[in-house]
Amino acid sequence: MNLRIPGPIPVPDDILDVMSSPMINHRGSDFKDILYRVTSNLKQVFETESDMYILTSSGTGAMEAAVTNTLSPGDQVLCASIGSFGNRFGQIAETFGANVTMLNFPAGTAVDLDRLRNQLMEAPETKAVLVTHNETNTGVTNDLEAICSVVKGEFDKLLLVDGISSVCSIPLRTDEWGCDVVVSASQKGWMLPPGLAFISFSERAWSANAEAKMPRFYFDVSQYKKYYEMGQPPWTPALSPIFALDYSLSKVLAEGIGSVYKRHVEIAQMTREGIKSLGLSIFPDESIASNTVTAVKVPEGIDADHIRKIVSSKGNVILAGAYGELTGKMFRIGHMGYVSPQEINHMLEVLGEALQEIGIS
Amino acid sequence: MNLRIPGPIPVPDDILDVMSSPMINHRGSDFKDILYRVTSNLKQVFETESDMYILTSSGTGAMEAAVTNTLSPGDQVLCASIGSFGNRFGQIAETFGANVTMLNFPAGTAVDLDRLRNQLMEAPETKAVLVTHNETNTGVTNDLEAICSVVKGEFDKLLLVDGISSVCSIPLRTDEWGCDVVVSASQKGWMLPPGLAFISFSERAWSANAEAKMPRFYFDVSQYKKYYEMGQPPWTPALSPIFALDYSLSKVLAEGIGSVYKRHVEIAQMTREGIKSLGLSIFPDESIASNTVTAVKVPEGIDADHIRKIVSSKGNVILAGAYGELTGKMFRIGHMGYVSPQEINHMLEVLGEALQEIGIS
Repeated sequence: MNLRIPGPIPVPDDILDVMSSPMINHRGSDFKDILYRVTSNLKQVFETESDMYILTSSGTGAMEAAVTNTLSPGDQVLCASIGSFGNRFGQIAETFGANVTMLNFPAGTAVDLDRLRNQLMEAPETKAVLVTHNETNTGVTNDLEAICSVVKGEFDKLLLVDGISSVCSIPLRTDEWGCDVVVSASQKGWMLPPGLAFISFSERAWSANAEAKMPRFYFDVSQYKKYYEMGQPPWTPALSPIFALDYSLSKVLAEGIGSVYKRHVEIAQMTREGIKSLGLSIFPDESIASNTVTAVKVPEGIDADHIRKIVSSKGNVILAGAYGELTGKMFRIGHMGYVSPQEINHMLEVLGEALQEIGIS
Repeated sequence: MNLRIPGPIPVPDDILDVMSSPMINHRGSDFKDILYRVTSNLKQVFETESDMYILTSSGTGAMEAAVTNTLSPGDQVLCASIGSFGNRFGQIAETFGANVTMLNFPAGTAVDLDRLRNQLMEAPETKAVLVTHNETNTGVTNDLEAICSVVKGEFDKLLLVDGISSVCSIPLRTDEWGCDVVVSASQKGWMLPPGLAFISFSERAWSANAEAKMPRFYFDVSQYKKYYEMGQPPWTPALSPIFALDYSLSKVLAEGIGSVYKRHVEIAQMTREGIKSLGLSIFPDESIASNTVTAVKVPEGIDADHIRKIVSSKGNVILAGAYGELTGKMFRIGHMGYVSPQEINHMLEVLGEALQEIGIS
């Protein structure tokens, strides 16, 4: 199978092998060593010296943790959304009682800094800004550094970042840019199966935490802080993917994170060139196109999900559909983690055959 | 390693192998087949025809789901607690705003039905009762059937049950006894690594859900209900342990759940007899002693954690300590899932040597 959805990604065989490791005592010294090493290595990839915790959940759980650990019901929150995952971030804050202002940008575009700046000027009571680094549903990467310079540099607001499909694939300099909370999830660039989420928590986030009144228990980072001092998480952790994370992080750091980013740029460029050579177009402007997922627009009158079915049955290539109003209008190609040019070529070849079959070429 | 903690349990090799299966599309038809089969098989083990969902979390996450999906802030809740996991259930409800009355029973005892009945008579405004089936920290199994007959039969209250360390090891007849919500977790009798939790949800629980105002997002069962109809979970699931669950459930059902329960009784009896023959005593009265975890009292003046260190270094036998005020006064032996008499004998042998070394015999 050529699994080309934007997570779960195909996990390299040597990492899958580690998933079969036997269980150990999660409150013993062996696990303590692993936890501290993994946490330290995670911080290198997140480029942060802040606290960092591993949650047993999907990325959505970590988004909830980011919100509930820093905010109170009634807090004014600005959610800058460029797609369905951005909307989800806002929905979480609203669910837990924040007053959320949605600053929505058209599908396929990035956050417009002027609109963001204007909104923050108009609503000085804003306590926190929520933003998605890489919008998986539209294949757009925000210029997070520029967003940070507005949110932190100009307005000094608390900044919570969904880095689920960016960290470990696309540079996200947590401390340098001033992100207070950044979350990610294992089934993306980390080259792991789903099941773990990661959350970084700055000093500023801890100050917010001291006053945050949204209810939280399973995702309570203060419990994590307390237990990590003893070398264990508060609740029983998903050991298997943590063993695999330990291994995958050693590979990432041995390769060098700069090389990992470079591979993602190259594979993404190769994907975009291939798509265009087949006569299809990239959904967003290429200047903001994501290097972890490519959203492909299909010609008017063609059902993107029909194309997905053909490539699946023809060559066992699994592409992702789109959500919401974009359903059927485009498909998405995941290329995060370790992806070989052969895999992309195979996908393009099968896709080309499918397009010929339905008379596009 | 002879891992004898009450979860994570040692996972049989053939199940561990399945943890290395390659990733698939969690929104595709292959996963839909797996999800429906696994859910149907889970219902057989839970002995329920109610809805059943698989969460990516530890058991604590599922306890939070049980509470937040059925209750509102201000609801009067009775938590019948026989130990630290019972206390945790109450803390979760309190954290999310319930008015919790704790009905605490001394460590090593079970829920006293008369006290439970009296409390429910005195507080007719009680909306829900929280109870632990098997208290992992003290090695006590409550008579859940009798508790249900009081809570449901006499008072008709909503009943939320922590069956984390009982379901799939000790009979829990969800529908027959009238449990509205039952939760469990993968690293117990299910013979799996940690990372998944399971939650059953009765019609009565759905009625409560319609009025429940506690905030929830990641653990929102109504999202699960909606997405399961499409054959997928709302958030990216932990695929690897679900593949392994599919396999382990096929083994459990092939063996027959009655045989699985019987194995647990036999291994537990063997463990208790062995412990007594070494001159140690079982912490609770044997009539209520758990068949998944044995709590062992050490003689006055001896540090239980010192014994644990010796058996670990002597024979790589890993026992669990106790929490809270019981720390150092006892240790705990896990025997859930597939446990061979050889493993118990080895543990007893090493423990015997350790006791001799410190002059107890």
